[in-house]
Amino acid sequence: MGNKEHGGRVTIPTNLDVVPETIELMKRWGADAIRDCDGTEFPEELTKTGAKIYATYYTTRKDNAWAKANPDEVQQSYIMTNFYTATGNELQIPLMKGISDELMQVNTRDDRKRWWEVIDRSTGEVVSTDKWEYNEETGCVCIHDTEPFHEYTVSFLAYIIWDPVHMYNAVTNGWKDFEHQITFDVRQPKTHKYSMERLRKYCAEHPYVNVIRYTTFFHQFTLVFDELKREKFVDWYGYSSSVSPYILEQFEREVGYKFRPEFIIDQGYHNNQYRVPSKEYKDFQAFQRREVAKLAKEMVDITHECGKEAMMFLGDHWIGTEPFMEEFATIGLDAVVGSVGNGSTLRLISDIEGVKYTEGRFLPYFFPDTFHEGGDPVKEAKENWVTARRAILRKPIDRIGYGGYLKLALEFPEFLDYVESVCNEFRELYENAKGTTPYCVKKVAVLNSWGRIRSWGCHMVHHALYQKQNYSYAGIIEALSGAPFDVKFISFDDILENEDILKDIDVIINVGDGDTAHTGGAVWENPVISSAIRRFVYEGGGFIGIGEPAGHQYQGHYLQLADLIGVEKETGFTLNYDKYNWDEHPEHFILADTTKPVDFGEGKKSIYAYEGTEILVQREKEVQMAVNGFGAGRSVYISGLPYSFENSRILYRSILWSTHSEEELHQWYSTNFNVEVHAYVKNGKFCVVNNTYEPQNTVIYRGDGSSFALKMEANEIKWYAV
Amino acid sequence: MGNKEHGGRVTIPTNLDVVPETIELMKRWGADAIRDCDGTEFPEELTKTGAKIYATYYTTRKDNAWAKANPDEVQQSYIMTNFYTATGNELQIPLMKGISDELMQVNTRDDRKRWWEVIDRSTGEVVSTDKWEYNEETGCVCIHDTEPFHEYTVSFLAYIIWDPVHMYNAVTNGWKDFEHQITFDVRQPKTHKYSMERLRKYCAEHPYVNVIRYTTFFHQFTLVFDELKREKFVDWYGYSSSVSPYILEQFEREVGYKFRPEFIIDQGYHNNQYRVPSKEYKDFQAFQRREVAKLAKEMVDITHECGKEAMMFLGDHWIGTEPFMEEFATIGLDAVVGSVGNGSTLRLISDIEGVKYTEGRFLPYFFPDTFHEGGDPVKEAKENWVTARRAILRKPIDRIGYGGYLKLALEFPEFLDYVESVCNEFRELYENAKGTTPYCVKKVAVLNSWGRIRSWGCHMVHHALYQKQNYSYAGIIEALSGAPFDVKFISFDDILENEDILKDIDVIINVGDGDTAHTGGAVWENPVISSAIRRFVYEGGGFIGIGEPAGHQYQGHYLQLADLIGVEKETGFTLNYDKYNWDEHPEHFILADTTKPVDFGEGKKSIYAYEGTEILVQREKEVQMAVNGFGAGRSVYISGLPYSFENSRILYRSILWSTHSEEELHQWYSTNFNVEVHAYVKNGKFCVVNNTYEPQNTVIYRGDGSSFALKMEANEIKWYAV
Ligand SMILES: [Mg+2]
Ligand SMILES: [Mg+2]
Ligand SMILES: [Mg+2]
Repeated sequence: MGNKEHGGRVTIPTNLDVVPETIELMKRWGADAIRDCDGTEFPEELTKTGAKIYATYYTTRKDNAWAKANPDEVQQSYIMTNFYTATGNELQIPLMKGISDELMQVNTRDDRKRWWEVIDRSTGEVVSTDKWEYNEETGCVCIHDTEPFHEYTVSFLAYIIWDPVHMYNAVTNGWKDFEHQITFDVRQPKTHKYSMERLRKYCAEHPYVNVIRYTTFFHQFTLVFDELKREKFVDWYGYSSSVSPYILEQFEREVGYKFRPEFIIDQGYHNNQYRVPSKEYKDFQAFQRREVAKLAKEMVDITHECGKEAMMFLGDHWIGTEPFMEEFATIGLDAVVGSVGNGSTLRLISDIEGVKYTEGRFLPYFFPDTFHEGGDPVKEAKENWVTARRAILRKPIDRIGYGGYLKLALEFPEFLDYVESVCNEFRELYENAKGTTPYCVKKVAVLNSWGRIRSWGCHMVHHALYQKQNYSYAGIIEALSGAPFDVKFISFDDILENEDILKDIDVIINVGDGDTAHTGGAVWENPVISSAIRRFVYEGGGFIGIGEPAGHQYQGHYLQLADLIGVEKETGFTLNYDKYNWDEHPEHFILADTTKPVDFGEGKKSIYAYEGTEILVQREKEVQMAVNGFGAGRSVYISGLPYSFENSRILYRSILWSTHSEEELHQWYSTNFNVEVHAYVKNGKFCVVNNTYEPQNTVIYRGDGSSFALKMEANEIKWYAV
Repeated sequence: MGNKEHGGRVTIPTNLDVVPETIELMKRWGADAIRDCDGTEFPEELTKTGAKIYATYYTTRKDNAWAKANPDEVQQSYIMTNFYTATGNELQIPLMKGISDELMQVNTRDDRKRWWEVIDRSTGEVVSTDKWEYNEETGCVCIHDTEPFHEYTVSFLAYIIWDPVHMYNAVTNGWKDFEHQITFDVRQPKTHKYSMERLRKYCAEHPYVNVIRYTTFFHQFTLVFDELKREKFVDWYGYSSSVSPYILEQFEREVGYKFRPEFIIDQGYHNNQYRVPSKEYKDFQAFQRREVAKLAKEMVDITHECGKEAMMFLGDHWIGTEPFMEEFATIGLDAVVGSVGNGSTLRLISDIEGVKYTEGRFLPYFFPDTFHEGGDPVKEAKENWVTARRAILRKPIDRIGYGGYLKLALEFPEFLDYVESVCNEFRELYENAKGTTPYCVKKVAVLNSWGRIRSWGCHMVHHALYQKQNYSYAGIIEALSGAPFDVKFISFDDILENEDILKDIDVIINVGDGDTAHTGGAVWENPVISSAIRRFVYEGGGFIGIGEPAGHQYQGHYLQLADLIGVEKETGFTLNYDKYNWDEHPEHFILADTTKPVDFGEGKKSIYAYEGTEILVQREKEVQMAVNGFGAGRSVYISGLPYSFENSRILYRSILWSTHSEEELHQWYSTNFNVEVHAYVKNGKFCVVNNTYEPQNTVIYRGDGSSFALKMEANEIKWYAV
């Protein structure tokens, strides 16, 4: 399984109690970097191995002395209370109901009348500040002159008095007898100054450390726990915990308008992934990103001055450092490391530009949840590797690594063997694929409200966790992560700025539920958007709509591109229109490789086809898949497409069909959809990968259309010269 | 099976070829009225039987000489073309594409620039009249200076050159060699005058006719056929075919603002049942109803002058004569007759006030679709009778009858027997129940945008046709039609006018999909509405929400009463909130009689419960049924509830539970839900009915809580003294 000879590109975790074993495994795995583990000390002997040493560094915690001495610079979060109904003319709203008071503390230090907001949610109107006051004793805001049976909420600032990740770790692992790590805000003046000194001191005191691994910089993504210390809400992209009056006043000066808590609170939705972002929220994000980038650069510069590399962990306090944002490269980081759960999360790392290298932390982590008697870490590792591999083959990360307690893994010799084979396989494919872009059949753009900044992560709520409402859409992104397409993520704003960006694209994908950021919502009331997409398709482009593409009730359509897509959603408004088009066309090019009824995941109800549209699948007179011509272009509608090899093939064929490229099918292609082909023409190589855990037979087509039959072992990857 | 002795209350259809059989059957069935049949001549011999004779009268057709002589007074309809995408700066839109040209003809007589509207549907803006013209040769509107890739529609007036019902009958029955009956508009001055004379003439020429059965008055409900003469769209409540410049100018004068075709066209939705009606549309309806009532009264007065009764058929040209409208009683009709498909359609007739009597036409019609060799008319008749009977027991119609060709029925002696038993049973129950209101356990109000005017019909698209998107909601109305509740249909406008109407109500039901007229849509942004409902429940009222009650995205809720109902819809905006409340409580009072998993019909996806809400049923973490306390009141959420005896019981128990009335369960009650009890306390009677086609065992509770066991034969009804 590949070349053992050339080691490197692998990071191993270690600990004081496994030093000789670490050294032994470093040789077997070809590891050239060693990382510490949260809560462990670094073994001195390992500083002499010649391997790079990574040290995790926390910019915002692990210094309670400072935090306690500077309570005004503790990090803050905007919190909205529950909705409370007034039953008379006065209403008490307890601010911390439903919020862990170990996590948050009401900020009574700053001007409440300026930074808090009481809203009548029955009207959307802000309650005048002279109609309410906060009682520190009761913890309640008392509102006067309430309208009976209106609902009210209070938006307020709270200090984050326990780092949410520390809290999560402590609660999950049942830690006892420890001090809550208080957060401090590096953006604030005193802490800013102090933090730079603290970093220099740390570098000086850790001469053996080669790489400072920042976890991450300054602002935790939105993560709030309830009174039972259970997770209450989370948004891996959320900015709600990146606020403070100090920052907000700067924001106001920059944008020239008054800040409102509602910009962040957003009716309690906290501008999550699904919300079509407001102008003010986008302004705030842009402001934060610029400010965070500036400050992160200061730390990176210090790191470099101290002769070390700066590596960023993609997660935890990463708000404002989104790697696909414009400002990212200016930070000057050497590397980004992130956790790899699937193909999408792999691309989230490997597509990052502006760093010297990227590294993926593979699963399973060496934690007791997997590494216990009866556990099967090899199975998890295989699944993880094979899922990620197809994405690596599109855009490789530069390094791989593992995390957790090495001691636990040592109990599973088969696991150690398997990881050895993965390390070798990774190095082999890296050698073969490096420095070139693999052959891309088409240029595909995923269009939503977030665009590039949320590339690959656009359907992630909490990193890559499963959601019933989501997997049928996230499957598209996962399929794309390992497919031979040049994938871009573009936003409606991008089109408004310059419609010509569509000229460079073959296929536009719009995937998600109506009236969400994934499909655009009210943006479709802007004729510049609807016209641009219609023109794009009319002139020959492909459109693939999944779920409720362009879904927003307006001017006689629910699906705003209904005429182009050829299907519409029955919302009741046309229930009185007769629908005669129900014939299925199962022999269509797109379905040619299917082996069973298509799995649409959650699918969609109430979709019907216009006359002239070709239905591929309808179930109980609800269309699940249909195709339509529009001018020189074509559209494919799919109700949902969870990730599977078979569905990945359906998407592949949809993309070809939508661009009138059926004849391009037999190029760098495997007839068996469990097997994929990736070609690195510049390097004169191509590979064939079996994505399954069983042997597979297939016929492989080369780029010139010539073909050969092939039997692949389970999980096998084979390399060929072009 | 009841008293044969006292005949009457039954209408029989007849024809020239079955005169002796008619007389024979009149005796057997106790028929005291005879009706003609569309297209048949009335047999003179029958004029001497002493029975009342009904004659169908068509106010708007069957006089092509007049219609042809007055083409300017042919009826008109507002039609919207399909959506057309401009690909350059000029666009041709063919008006009649998709519309039968045997049905409609473009009105080129009236000022097109005044009465037509070209709309840019990408912006919602009206295209200036100097930018388009109509070409009679091509049948196209040509629009100039179009914005490329905007969508356009044309709204225009068309003459209804073939009566839609006549067309339907002709096409369905494959008629050959006949003249299309052209419609004429009695509202127009010449036709108005002529029609009154025509009616007088008819009365004079038909001295033996006792009852003029109007079919109906002046305006056909919306019913349009396509180029293949297939039904294109239909709205049993639709006003689109009740227009003409003459009428619209009157409307303008009355309301004092300019008429726009869009008031009627409504983006192509034609203000259908599901659309939250605009102020302008409600103004137009009110205007039409008043005008139609005035004119109908003229005809009724003439009818009376001529010594005849005036009966209205509930359907066909009934627009403007909706029996639950305020103006209806002023028409002075003697009777209303309508077709009975189920309990809801029965109540649509029997709840009518302001007439001397109501009559239900039962199924099956004596048509060849049922009455052919191998057909089973008894089965259809039984289903129809038993379904309608429970509604009759709540609010009896005064007469029953059958329609179609009697000759066909004569071939089925068992059917004739069965109808005889139905006639006897009907007379018996009428005697027992008449003149009193049956015992009502609760006062229940169905709240929607239409209110009283669409009582019982609020979920009907085309009378009582099945719709996949609808049956889970229509089931509630059907259950109520035969349940021991005092049922009101109220509108949001009613509440805005006088919130105190809620004081007289025990339970409010809101049933349907979000953002439809059934649930109210943007009306929930009006705090008067949301507060009124919250107050109502808080002070002890019951709320039953089915589907997406109060569903409209606004200020942090999708279900605007989420806090009251205790459930919310996951639209993605809170997918990042953790949901911990999933425990089911199947032992709840509401579910106590269920024999199998509840059938929610289409159900709902993505509903979750708040903390503190009691979930009765969730499936795959999607709540289908839940209950919640709110102040002194209670709410029940159900995702859908198709009509069945078991579901009817669930609704019954929900209503009791929602009003804290569990202890009232054992009053006029059958433990077996296939059997129902109706009490007529004033008359000293109660009855027990078996709604099924099998024998049933049950225990019956009287009003005082005393009980007795009972075995019921299939379909049986038993009468008892209180
Ligand atoms: Mg890590
Ligand atoms: Mg087509
Ligand atoms: Mg509760």
